[in-house]
This record gives sequence, C-alpha cells and structure tokens, in this order.
Amino acid sequence: MPAVQEIPAREGRAVKVSRGQALKVINTFGTQVVDFWAFNAADLGTYLSMQHTRATLSRLTPHAGDILVDNWREPMLSFESDTSPGVHDTVIPPCDRARYVKLGCAEEHASCAGNLRQALERLDLTAPPCPASFNLWMNIPVLPGGDLEWRETVAKPGDSVVFRALVDCIMVMSACPQDVIRINSGRPVSAQYALLDG
Amino acid sequence: MPAVQEIPAREGRAVKVSRGQALKVINTFGTQVVDFWAFNAADLGTYLSMQHTRATLSRLTPHAGDILVDNWREPMLSFESDTSPGVHDTVIPPCDRARYVKLGCAEEHASCAGNLRQALERLDLTAPPCPASFNLWMNIPVLPGGDLEWRETVAKPGDSVVFRALVDCIMVMSACPQDVIRINSGRPVSAQYALLDG
Repeated sequence: MPAVQEIPAREGRAVKVSRGQALKVINTFGTQVVDFWAFNAADLGTYLSMQHTRATLSRLTPHAGDILVDNWREPMLSFESDTSPGVHDTVIPPCDRARYVKLGCAEEHASCAGNLRQALERLDLTAPPCPASFNLWMNIPVLPGGDLEWRETVAKPGDSVVFRALVDCIMVMSACPQDVIRINSGRPVSAQYALLDG
Repeated sequence: MPAVQEIPAREGRAVKVSRGQALKVINTFGTQVVDFWAFNAADLGTYLSMQHTRATLSRLTPHAGDILVDNWREPMLSFESDTSPGVHDTVIPPCDRARYVKLGCAEEHASCAGNLRQALERLDLTAPPCPASFNLWMNIPVLPGGDLEWRETVAKPGDSVVFRALVDCIMVMSACPQDVIRINSGRPVSAQYALLDG
C-alpha cells in the first residue's frame, strides 16, 4: 500500500517519477481542481504539452487509456485510470499573479503558476515559462458557439487519476487556490497523491 | 492604399508593427490556413497567448472586436475586423518537423514552426520555444463530447482579418504547408498581408 501524501490547500508539490512508476492524484473532498504538469527529468524544456496532446488525440481533453505527449509530440505519460466522471480541462492556463490582481486580490495571493515554481525550486529546479497545465477536475464546458463556462467540479470525494511515466519525469501538482470564482466550490481544500511502483 | 505583400506558399513572414499600426492578413484564395503569432518587440518572451486569451474572453476562439492578451494577461492586439465567417482555431499547435515525420514526410518538409523561426531569423530575432499560434481560417470544430475534426476552411477568396497593435509588436504569419491532411483543401497556396497605418 503506497504512502499517501498531502497536497495542502493552495500549495503545490513536485515528485520525481521514474519511467515505469506512476503517480496517483486523489481529489480527497471531490471539490478541488488540481493543476498538473510533467517535465522530462533530463530536460525541463521538454514537458507535457496540452496543445500537442489535443492534436495527437484529435480531442480537447484526454480520457483514461490515452497516451499524453510532450512538446516534441513524443509519448510521455500513459493516462492509466480515472475513477471520476472524466471532466477535466486543457484550454485554460494555470492561475497566476496577474489573474488574481485583475480579480482584485492582493499580489501575494497564491497561484498555481507560483505553486509550480515553488514546488520545483524545492527540488532545485527551474520551471520553463508558461507551460499549459492539465487541469484535473476543472469543469469548463464548451458551449455551442465556443463560449466557455466556469463551473464547479463534478468529482466525488476520493476520485483519482493515475499517470504512468513513459520517461523519467518530474510531475507537479497544485491544489488550485482559486477562491474568487467557484471552480473549487468557493473553498480551496487539500488533495493527495501517491507514488505507485511499476 | 497600403502595399499588399505576398506570403509565398509554404513560407512565413515577420513584420514589425508599431503601436497604433495594424496588420491585415488576406486569405487570397480562400482555402489557406495562416498561422499567426505576435511578440512584444521589446521582449520576445512576451507574446500573444492563446490560453490566456481564451481565459480572458471565456471563449475558445476570438471574434472581431475582441482584445487579445499576452502571456502576462496584458492587452496586446485588437482583433479589429474579420470579413470571413470567423472560423479560426486556437487549440491546435503549429505544425512542426515532428508532425510531418509522424505523417511519413521527409524531415525537410516545411512547417509553420520552422517558418516562424526562419521569419524571425531574417529580422535577427530568435523565437521562444513552442508559442501556440492563432490559426487563422483553420476549421477544427469541437464536436459534442470534445472530439476535434480537421476540416477544410470556410473562407471566401479575399477574406481578411485585421489586428491592431496595442504595443510595439513583431507579427509573424505562416502560409501553412500542410499537404497531407485536407485543412488547406489539399494544396497549400500563398496568402497576403498589408501594413496599415493608424
């Protein structure tokens, strides 16, 4: 039974995941969006790319069973399982300082982009600028005509996804601190993860 | 009457556009996808961002009248006019060498990512890696359920879009060389542009 680790509310965590290992991300309370990134451990300029994954799959959002690719279109992760209804987002960027300032918050409001940087810094790593995140459980339906809505998650408490590394990776998760709009049901909470061996 | 310039088939062009000036991009034959980027002339690490523009507009694809933002969520371009039916794409990345190799083409097949690099190099500039493009006239409908289709353009010959610079910019266009799938009606052709003063 792998040790389950906490992602504290509004914080990020980075984990080294060797090829063949997998990371389980758990939506402990079912209401939390978790922004997710993966970087090639040998070169952080090679990372999980939402735009290239959309083109490879010819689909806006990956499903369990899909292979996710990096910014060179090479297979990086197997999206091995998903116990949730599968409502995730790839079209909205991670929240950042600019987002919260425009929403009227203080400059020091936590953000997923800041959490990514800090989580990697704790491993003495520097993130490349602006990688798009795979926004787990973020519920952004595309309406006919292309308008986007920002809704609450539809996950159940304890729902989880598993990503298996096809190359040595650094995977990063941020328990999204968005508390102005209602994507986290208005109250950002913690999430969890577990490193699974092959 | 501003001088109309050619974007030769399968090639790219970069243009300095000062604040207040505008660039008109013309779909000469109506069948051509033109990948488009804009960079802040003072810092090429600041560029038109499709993901931040989607979030700012709460829409998948900008319409004429919208303000397009950079990767710091700051206004960069005014999407001033569009004579076409407004079918453009923001979710598919520019084609690149990896795309064509996977499609069975030779490594030297032209690509929009390569055209971006070469067009900027002709101005002694270096593009940051992997900026998402605004794919003018690319017809990628999102089906219910999120599947994407790759269709031919719905533009008419001579349709055009106009982007006005809100900051000093380098704008780059690539006449997409995709000739394997049918997004350019199977035959990549030239397009045109014109620099418009304020």
